[in-house]
Amino acid sequence: MPQSEFAVIADIFAPLARTPAALGLKDDVALLKGRKNRVVTTDALIAGVDFFANDPPADIARKALRVNLSDLAAKGAKPEAYLLTLALPKSVTPQWLRAFARGLAADQKEFGIALLGGDMSGTPGPLTISITAFGIADKPILRRGAKPGDIVFVSGTVGDSGGGLAALKARKRHAFLIDRYRIPQPRIALGRKLRGLASAALDVSDGLIADLGHIAEVSKVHIAVEAARIPLSPELCRFWNGDAVRAATAGDDYEIAFTAPRRLRARVLAAARVARTPVTEIGWVMPGRGVALIGPDGKAVDLVRRGWTHF
Amino acid sequence: MPQSEFAVIADIFAPLARTPAALGLKDDVALLKGRKNRVVTTDALIAGVDFFANDPPADIARKALRVNLSDLAAKGAKPEAYLLTLALPKSVTPQWLRAFARGLAADQKEFGIALLGGDMSGTPGPLTISITAFGIADKPILRRGAKPGDIVFVSGTVGDSGGGLAALKARKRHAFLIDRYRIPQPRIALGRKLRGLASAALDVSDGLIADLGHIAEVSKVHIAVEAARIPLSPELCRFWNGDAVRAATAGDDYEIAFTAPRRLRARVLAAARVARTPVTEIGWVMPGRGVALIGPDGKAVDLVRRGWTHF
Repeated sequence: MPQSEFAVIADIFAPLARTPAALGLKDDVALLKGRKNRVVTTDALIAGVDFFANDPPADIARKALRVNLSDLAAKGAKPEAYLLTLALPKSVTPQWLRAFARGLAADQKEFGIALLGGDMSGTPGPLTISITAFGIADKPILRRGAKPGDIVFVSGTVGDSGGGLAALKARKRHAFLIDRYRIPQPRIALGRKLRGLASAALDVSDGLIADLGHIAEVSKVHIAVEAARIPLSPELCRFWNGDAVRAATAGDDYEIAFTAPRRLRARVLAAARVARTPVTEIGWVMPGRGVALIGPDGKAVDLVRRGWTHF
Repeated sequence: MPQSEFAVIADIFAPLARTPAALGLKDDVALLKGRKNRVVTTDALIAGVDFFANDPPADIARKALRVNLSDLAAKGAKPEAYLLTLALPKSVTPQWLRAFARGLAADQKEFGIALLGGDMSGTPGPLTISITAFGIADKPILRRGAKPGDIVFVSGTVGDSGGGLAALKARKRHAFLIDRYRIPQPRIALGRKLRGLASAALDVSDGLIADLGHIAEVSKVHIAVEAARIPLSPELCRFWNGDAVRAATAGDDYEIAFTAPRRLRARVLAAARVARTPVTEIGWVMPGRGVALIGPDGKAVDLVRRGWTHF
């Protein structure tokens, strides 16, 4: 595939999505209107691509579910239920599946959701898990609302998951970072509190800079991020020697990146306290297009790699 | 996997689905209640398992969509929209994807539906297409309503798709049967008309006998089918020498098998005429459990293989 998935989606699939509910295929969710307004999202994980086949099965299950719940969280939605599709290689045993289901059960309890249905079949390829998740949201926070003058926030810390992946690949032990890679924390409580405050939001999966690029593109604005303000965990600071550029382009963070009007800053910070989720102000929105990462010298950092792409 | 997928679903996944909307994981759809009541279904197709990797891309797209629309059809639902998840091997080209999208576009027009969103990533394994489809249905026809005294119907003809698959595997040309394998015809109009008439329904994907077994199990009844009454196309009659048992256990038919009270027989047949879809009465519902296929001697046929299982 010589094209990026973004080009393929825009060129080939967006023409198929001529309903307002699809949001032009430019958001992480689609809208299902009704008495209860729902949002729906789908994400697949593939062994060897998105996780290691020998990861603990319960962790694989929880990650597959949580990357979807993270999309709901960033939209301010309350998770409700999910569908599960499994393509299983012959090597998968009932014991493995039971441990996988225990991971789902634990997260169903934690997030108050239920399995609705799904599909299961054998595959000659790698284990592939596709989940479709539903959430209730009356006024979902979309990617398209960022305005010049808004400020940019991100929840939690950035880059830990990328560090965990690097540690696993290098066969280094690093429980904190590897746990951040294996078990994302969907920021449900924060997303709920940001309704009416955030002008645009998404969860960071491709990488902070790449994902803010999605907001910039859909909102038709320029976003500037100060590298020095990107929140790094002490563990990642040591592991990557404080390299914020690497952290901001690593991906798989499942934190919420969002914009809000400057006049709402105090209310955003209060909402984050109530949700017991740290948020950090990292930049601002201007007229223009694209994302700039501003280095310590006040100049834009030249980014070789902006984030994860799928082919 | 030593267990069938049915055992795995019942043992491992049904305990995760303790919401009425999931129908105990015993139907083809789940229910999303609201001002508009929706049904939702998901089915995945895998290259080398559910289709041939060198099938025409537009046909692959249409089959992936239609196996889901067929689930909606059997529930009496009006298709509304769908999500598309693609796991793409490196060999897939943009040209292939464009042809694939043309197949989707043609079917979107035919069925009045739109793409809502999805996910796309690379895979080291075979092309895997997972679709989640939504339909509107106020009173969906479930698997669980068959009653002793009801009669059993099936739409169209049975076994053509299995014949087409056999023809493809034997490298025999047979345009009619191969077309039936590649391009299922979801019986939307019939399903809509059966609301209020059919007591239970599903689409035939695993095989007529196996799928009637699902109705028998969930409805807690016995179903008897007369082999001689199973509708076979003239083409399949020649190809399989009139072997109705083989036809009834082949699968991939995407016809609607349903039950209805005997007193509604005339109304069922009238509804089928309005929907321009032939239906044939093939059996009856009794107290008990399981499915029997009755041979020309009036005795139950001993079935070695009841239908398709996934591992």
